[in-house]
Amino acid sequence: MRTVNVGLIGLGTVGSGVVEILARHREHFRTRAGVDLALAKCADSNPERAKALGLSADIFTTDVADVIDDPAIDVVIELIGGTGVARTVVLNALGAGKTVVTANKALMATHGQEVMDAAAATGADIFFEAAVGGGIPIIGPLKHSLVSNEIQAVYGIVNGTTNFMLTRMAEDGLTYDVALAEAQARGFAEADPTADVDGLDAAAKIAILASIAFNSRVTFADVPAEGIRSITPGDIEYAREIGYEIKLVAIGKRTAEGLDIRVHPTMIRSDHPLAKVSGVYNAIYVVGDSVGETMFFGEGAGSLPAASAVVGDLVEAARHIQGSCRGLVGCTCTESHPVRDIADLVTSYYVRLHACDQPGVLAAIASIFGDSGVSIASVIQRRAEDGDAEIVWITHEAAECDIRSALAAIEQLDVVDYIGSVLRVEEL
Amino acid sequence: MRTVNVGLIGLGTVGSGVVEILARHREHFRTRAGVDLALAKCADSNPERAKALGLSADIFTTDVADVIDDPAIDVVIELIGGTGVARTVVLNALGAGKTVVTANKALMATHGQEVMDAAAATGADIFFEAAVGGGIPIIGPLKHSLVSNEIQAVYGIVNGTTNFMLTRMAEDGLTYDVALAEAQARGFAEADPTADVDGLDAAAKIAILASIAFNSRVTFADVPAEGIRSITPGDIEYAREIGYEIKLVAIGKRTAEGLDIRVHPTMIRSDHPLAKVSGVYNAIYVVGDSVGETMFFGEGAGSLPAASAVVGDLVEAARHIQGSCRGLVGCTCTESHPVRDIADLVTSYYVRLHACDQPGVLAAIASIFGDSGVSIASVIQRRAEDGDAEIVWITHEAAECDIRSALAAIEQLDVVDYIGSVLRVEEL
Repeated sequence: MRTVNVGLIGLGTVGSGVVEILARHREHFRTRAGVDLALAKCADSNPERAKALGLSADIFTTDVADVIDDPAIDVVIELIGGTGVARTVVLNALGAGKTVVTANKALMATHGQEVMDAAAATGADIFFEAAVGGGIPIIGPLKHSLVSNEIQAVYGIVNGTTNFMLTRMAEDGLTYDVALAEAQARGFAEADPTADVDGLDAAAKIAILASIAFNSRVTFADVPAEGIRSITPGDIEYAREIGYEIKLVAIGKRTAEGLDIRVHPTMIRSDHPLAKVSGVYNAIYVVGDSVGETMFFGEGAGSLPAASAVVGDLVEAARHIQGSCRGLVGCTCTESHPVRDIADLVTSYYVRLHACDQPGVLAAIASIFGDSGVSIASVIQRRAEDGDAEIVWITHEAAECDIRSALAAIEQLDVVDYIGSVLRVEEL
Repeated sequence: MRTVNVGLIGLGTVGSGVVEILARHREHFRTRAGVDLALAKCADSNPERAKALGLSADIFTTDVADVIDDPAIDVVIELIGGTGVARTVVLNALGAGKTVVTANKALMATHGQEVMDAAAATGADIFFEAAVGGGIPIIGPLKHSLVSNEIQAVYGIVNGTTNFMLTRMAEDGLTYDVALAEAQARGFAEADPTADVDGLDAAAKIAILASIAFNSRVTFADVPAEGIRSITPGDIEYAREIGYEIKLVAIGKRTAEGLDIRVHPTMIRSDHPLAKVSGVYNAIYVVGDSVGETMFFGEGAGSLPAASAVVGDLVEAARHIQGSCRGLVGCTCTESHPVRDIADLVTSYYVRLHACDQPGVLAAIASIFGDSGVSIASVIQRRAEDGDAEIVWITHEAAECDIRSALAAIEQLDVVDYIGSVLRVEEL
């Protein structure tokens, strides 16, 4: 058994989990998986992190080049994140013929093609299971066990922060602001929560999942994303009254007109397995032409869950190195499907708007919907706390562009105060 | 790209699904996965099946030796089932150095070691994802993505027939007999339902899952199994009143005293993700020391779902053959842990018994529980339809052997008519 030398770059949350698992299970990996993994070098800009982890000074460096340029290193684990230094590290490591394991969703969602090309050029392996869904096995299953399927759809609750917030809002009536403050206090949300609450994190993840599921490159820039800032506990209550939950769902669908990829707060039926995924848990729901409906559930974030995926990839990487069979499964984006414009979407919508509580208002709004070709399935009007009328409209299936032009006109009405939420309904 | 020649033995439910997927996606497997899979030979005892599938007479045979002995065949798919002919087919194919893909849970649960040894002897690959959970990827994830974990527990709802029946009983109050008849009418249960309703099918599956999860061989014979024949809609109602669902759960746990492996109807908390798995769906809940809690959900049976797993394995087999890297992951049972005697189990129990509705009965039964060291958490007595008293006892944690001796003594009481159900509670 030859020792596989590992260079770990980035000793933050996930990196420290990797160090812990390697220390705890090195002997298990030898006996159970037949690979010997040695943590040969670690890099971080902050030497204190290495000390806190009890790493020997001999193997620590602040210069990533010490890892990448070391010919003894077989596998580089990139846990810096982002698309700056991390991109250079990954490309250079692959260029040097090293296997790379990364948890970097931004990199894979933005520069995925470049990274896969760099791996192919030297026959190196690139693994990124931890980029989506933390410890949940999803990229491996899509590339292996489910490869016999034409995947029709992928629906993911892939952002634990927003799912935690929506769960707290649903179960205890918290407002968005209070739920966010609690998420921050518990370490589930950053001081600047933009990436989570505006759906950008989920957008990167569905770009990666869709690229694999549909064999066609989808990038972060292709994904229209809306977040949960406008959601109120009242929206969640309205939804529940008609049998739906509101979740931030990352959606990828194969359609005859191209790929339908988007992230937004979504009304899904309460009895759907995804509707029952609560708190910081993540789940990815995959529909294939043979397997039917399948779901992968687990902890989508956290040091050890994400490190579980990283080290799982690392063991696989080591098996391939020992067996001299790297490059078995490279880039699977072998086709090129267009990504549909969200303006062409046709679905049902939930619209909550606030208007003056006076005669003729409902009729004025309803006639604009009608003139725009939007047919209404139900409408509920209630008196809001400020004395306004809060009116919730559920439409029949309508075109996104028609909804948008209707809402633009409705917003111009003097009697309309503001449009609170616009949610899409997904009958998955 | 060299063509990988496939020999398919068994053209029943799963086999016909395999034929369908190969016909539908052969070109996709070439372009997307880089492997060319040719259905070179098919065997079945019934030639009509081949005709019904539109298979050319050239590639059909009724003699399995025509497949195994053909040097042009690279991969043998065994879909006969059982441990008779199937065992010989698998051993001979591996002995001839061919890769084998099988969906045969009975074979792997009973002769798993022999099969793995035969594969190792010639360096052949053996794949069996379809043996557990139909199309749900679970064996792949356990052997790959989750390999970084010490798995602490595996809980499976792995028998769709009984889960369908229990769901019908829970949701519509059907009796066991009516639920069974409906399952049979809808093709979910065999004319002889023994393997499903007595937990034997689930026992084979947990033997396989536990062997992989705990790196230690567990066979079908090691697994005590109890089925659902004694469950009544009343039991399910009682359970729900105190916040539990009744599911047939296949349990595998790593404990300091050895492996705790068993199948029985189990009370699990209603808010646990496994409790929400309804109908014919299956789910496997895995707890690892790094990943935490994760669950795999999907269709556990049916032609195409099972064939999805078989063909997923087949594509993987072909990649290994093309890449000249077979034998990368062989037997993972590298340790030898004892399987605990269920008599040593300590858990809470639910006991429903029927007794004469007369003074002193409750006291007589309670004193036997007390004398046996079994402490009672709650008791509910109701008048049964036949005028008897139906008494439901929930115990605190107690030893299985104590419960058994208590029940043996209680059954001897003249005033006790019969013991209806004994269920174990699992706080997972």
